[in-house]
Amino acid sequence: MPYTRTDLAMEAFENTDSGAIPGVSVSHWEADGVQITEVLITDNEAALQLDKPKGSYLTLECPRLIERDPDARLAVSSLLAEEIGRLLPECGDGAPVLVVGLGNRSITPDSLGPGVVDRTLTTRHILGASYIQRQMNSVCAIAPGVLGVTGIESMELVEALVKSLRPCAILCVDSLAARDSRRIGCTIQLTDTGIQPGAGVGNHRKPLTEASVGTPVISVGMPTVVYAATLARDAFAWLSAQNGDAEPHEDALNDMERTLLSADIGEMIVTPREIDAIVQDAAGIIASGINRALQPALSDAEIAAMMD
Amino acid sequence: MPYTRTDLAMEAFENTDSGAIPGVSVSHWEADGVQITEVLITDNEAALQLDKPKGSYLTLECPRLIERDPDARLAVSSLLAEEIGRLLPECGDGAPVLVVGLGNRSITPDSLGPGVVDRTLTTRHILGASYIQRQMNSVCAIAPGVLGVTGIESMELVEALVKSLRPCAILCVDSLAARDSRRIGCTIQLTDTGIQPGAGVGNHRKPLTEASVGTPVISVGMPTVVYAATLARDAFAWLSAQNGDAEPHEDALNDMERTLLSADIGEMIVTPREIDAIVQDAAGIIASGINRALQPALSDAEIAAMMD
Amino acid sequence: MPYTRTDLAMEAFENTDSGAIPGVSVSHWEADGVQITEVLITDNEAALQLDKPKGSYLTLECPRLIERDPDARLAVSSLLAEEIGRLLPECGDGAPVLVVGLGNRSITPDSLGPGVVDRTLTTRHILGASYIQRQMNSVCAIAPGVLGVTGIESMELVEALVKSLRPCAILCVDSLAARDSRRIGCTIQLTDTGIQPGAGVGNHRKPLTEASVGTPVISVGMPTVVYAATLARDAFAWLSAQNGDAEPHEDALNDMERTLLSADIGEMIVTPREIDAIVQDAAGIIASGINRALQPALSDAEIAAMMD
Amino acid sequence: MPYTRTDLAMEAFENTDSGAIPGVSVSHWEADGVQITEVLITDNEAALQLDKPKGSYLTLECPRLIERDPDARLAVSSLLAEEIGRLLPECGDGAPVLVVGLGNRSITPDSLGPGVVDRTLTTRHILGASYIQRQMNSVCAIAPGVLGVTGIESMELVEALVKSLRPCAILCVDSLAARDSRRIGCTIQLTDTGIQPGAGVGNHRKPLTEASVGTPVISVGMPTVVYAATLARDAFAWLSAQNGDAEPHEDALNDMERTLLSADIGEMIVTPREIDAIVQDAAGIIASGINRALQPALSDAEIAAMMD
Repeated sequence: MPYTRTDLAMEAFENTDSGAIPGVSVSHWEADGVQITEVLITDNEAALQLDKPKGSYLTLECPRLIERDPDARLAVSSLLAEEIGRLLPECGDGAPVLVVGLGNRSITPDSLGPGVVDRTLTTRHILGASYIQRQMNSVCAIAPGVLGVTGIESMELVEALVKSLRPCAILCVDSLAARDSRRIGCTIQLTDTGIQPGAGVGNHRKPLTEASVGTPVISVGMPTVVYAATLARDAFAWLSAQNGDAEPHEDALNDMERTLLSADIGEMIVTPREIDAIVQDAAGIIASGINRALQPALSDAEIAAMMD
Repeated sequence: MPYTRTDLAMEAFENTDSGAIPGVSVSHWEADGVQITEVLITDNEAALQLDKPKGSYLTLECPRLIERDPDARLAVSSLLAEEIGRLLPECGDGAPVLVVGLGNRSITPDSLGPGVVDRTLTTRHILGASYIQRQMNSVCAIAPGVLGVTGIESMELVEALVKSLRPCAILCVDSLAARDSRRIGCTIQLTDTGIQPGAGVGNHRKPLTEASVGTPVISVGMPTVVYAATLARDAFAWLSAQNGDAEPHEDALNDMERTLLSADIGEMIVTPREIDAIVQDAAGIIASGINRALQPALSDAEIAAMMD
Repeated sequence: MPYTRTDLAMEAFENTDSGAIPGVSVSHWEADGVQITEVLITDNEAALQLDKPKGSYLTLECPRLIERDPDARLAVSSLLAEEIGRLLPECGDGAPVLVVGLGNRSITPDSLGPGVVDRTLTTRHILGASYIQRQMNSVCAIAPGVLGVTGIESMELVEALVKSLRPCAILCVDSLAARDSRRIGCTIQLTDTGIQPGAGVGNHRKPLTEASVGTPVISVGMPTVVYAATLARDAFAWLSAQNGDAEPHEDALNDMERTLLSADIGEMIVTPREIDAIVQDAAGIIASGINRALQPALSDAEIAAMMD
Repeated sequence: MPYTRTDLAMEAFENTDSGAIPGVSVSHWEADGVQITEVLITDNEAALQLDKPKGSYLTLECPRLIERDPDARLAVSSLLAEEIGRLLPECGDGAPVLVVGLGNRSITPDSLGPGVVDRTLTTRHILGASYIQRQMNSVCAIAPGVLGVTGIESMELVEALVKSLRPCAILCVDSLAARDSRRIGCTIQLTDTGIQPGAGVGNHRKPLTEASVGTPVISVGMPTVVYAATLARDAFAWLSAQNGDAEPHEDALNDMERTLLSADIGEMIVTPREIDAIVQDAAGIIASGINRALQPALSDAEIAAMMD
């Protein structure tokens, strides 16, 4: 079993030796210049092997996002809106969708979730107002990690709110760790499996899943870091290949990574110098996808005009 | 009945014609260069007349705070700590004190509460940790107004949290409106009556009181604004006095203020240009008072060292 | 001579008794829902009377800006771009235009200038780069007020830079004080007279004009505050009118305002509670006008794509 | 010649094969729990070999800074003050000391310089004021990197200011890259050699030295990152040692690092997740050292009281 430190199901799969695992089906396609990969994990054995729970994982990849290409941004947010729309349940009875931005606002690579919440169009408090003419869904949003540093666990706060607000669905956003540093800032993963303990840059201690809160939990994430131990492992393998060496044995690499993880260096993160700008950009793209998915009757201009 | 637009019980009382109202007792004293005024409202008639609920209101005034005098800061935060300690119930069973910072972080004069939460030492999540050697009380803190703009009412979030965390006391912090602009930035009010609808710079729509949540609610506030209508009224009176005119009739002044309130100008605020710095300073002083009151076994240096 | 505390030439003129002053010509027109007023002051006597230097003052007014109407924003920034283009000299030899954002970033109503600098497309450092395909003008930008608090006067820094960069024109942006609070956030003044001592929310101590630096200085400003003394004066007059009183004598009003100015209250500012959001919005609109005026060969999308 | 990617002279020296290089003298001592290393480079050959200009480099190391130990902070800032005082020339004629905070405020690991400028007590603009009773030196400060993104090079702005302000000394602060990640956040280097092209996290393109501006330039820096290529190199060597392998040949390691540097991964940075908090802390400690060195007649409390 390969040791992996990635929150992307797609990388966990790539990392396995062969192209086929029973209980996992993988499809690739392209749309509007965006590479899409779907990983479906359908049995428990496969879930164990990939260290990811059963469910559907969709990955959108678009390296041109890094160059801030406006067409690429639009393509990614449109595809994201479409796929979120597909996963969302019907919320017929006025129950809100609760958007949860996990992570800590004052740790740059962990601040994607709060950044998305800042850009989410929330409507729950204005739906009854007389000046609201258009058909809108009820949406509320919270960034509990701002609070996590204040003596209340993020998940504890989310659970208290779910009991009180009774949302029909939860849409979580979180910063992820990748294996390949080239995925930072240009890859978005969408899954119906919620948030798992140990995942994310902030390393959540409790799950946020349909099983834990009784409401469907969709989660959206983007890698913002690679762990230093993972980088060292990959640099080692890359170097061996450069030198024309035989590929290092998987066990040796795993040993190395595990050893580094227990040293100080393992918990260091590797990230681009421009991570502040990358996270802000990504928060805009993801929020745009969420706003379109949640308010299909509004145009982009109407959404923009309603934002504070 | 005079029309007033002030959150300070002391100003509501000053505003009445005579020095004595049945059901209200007022005391003044000085300590360490700080003027202290206690207003006790003990009957319903008086509460109606002053437009403030029954209870105790303590005001600390220290104009030297505006000049950022270090001795004044220390004196005020020490007195505040002492008085908060007097109002707090015993929390014997490990139940936390919940500090609630009301207001909106992105509206400067309404951001006192979130600023205090940022500087509050929270301990609830670390009390069990092995490295904690000292006797500490359990404290958690939340700034729900960041969330009020996201489709969830501040009070709704606080209520959900109170159900889940079962605190033994709530300590609220809020930005207030004063009548006299000279009180901005140098006056702190402490009361056991909680938060009332319509009070504060953010004008809360629901109460946060022992009656509404079943837990004692102490609130601490500082004026950061005067409403423009109030200023116009006072300027008018001040001008009449300057000119040696007979004092304008109270009814005429009330009429003027009410008329202005319905015009655009009435909702404008009057504030010092330096309000950004004043609010930050005040947040530091109030948080220091709260931290000392809640952790009497820790020295100032220990509190500072434990803050992130 | 009426005492005035306004940075808008248009309000200084409105404030005079009659509709005609020798040496002042005023025109009004409307375009795309924006009210435009041009005040031309052509002789010294008139300049003294209005307390504004000789030159051209163009005011764009659009109350719908306050409601964040996207059409209004576009109309105002387009008109602003056109008028800035008309005032700018030819910069044939590659000399840059220097955009100067006056004011203090940490005093909200004084932060318009730094906010515009943050959103200005600067090109001076990239003009030679091989990936630049389009015709672009050289632009650099500075917010010296961030520095003014650090022991160097804004104007001193601008003068040092002008000597070193030799710009062909200076485009200044500053926060202004108005007489009428309804002009806050929805009125832009454009003038070829530069910046005068005593003007602006920050009250500059030295001029920034063609005479002081040897380069044409165009300035753009928006009111963000009314001084409290001015409000009191206007409230008094407004109240008299409400009561059906005879209009108060101009001399009495001037006396009142001058007296208040020497009291604490006079230096207080009156501003909307939402000034943080208003200043951010206005910075976006003004920067958009400046970017279009300075880069006529680029589309809006190209400008947006080049911004960091 | 070993290839190095470190801004610390001490690490450049450690990296050489033997303990002795002609033209370099190294001393170690300890004071108040702080490890101090002085590297003196006295000839050109040695300067070439270490890739650092001739001059004096003092390094203060104190791992307890990472745990935010208050005693450690005080010890480091006191030692820093003393050593800065030793390097500063006499400024008898009222000429100011110019503090320059290099780096970009919106790239967290590059924001140390601007953070120090924010906390520096500047006095040049108030020295003549009647309320100033104490003997103070003239100090001004600038963070030009905020401007570097606005079309004006940091060094160009500093040069323009030096011509205009004629300081007697320049004190530069910059974020550095280290070789050993354990030095991030707990090591301060002080040198009389100024700033070299290519150094720092922001990789300056022009020098800022006594030779370039005609004024003595002292620089203070702290490592905030390790380049990913450097980490990979060290991980490789560390791993070989773990495995009991023969030490990898220096040439092989240099080859690896150079190859990685040309790949995408080489420009990635390695940094602790908590870098936002580490940089803020360090800015406070360094500014405290600078303030004490520049104002020996003021107590810490007086300095604090004069800061805005």
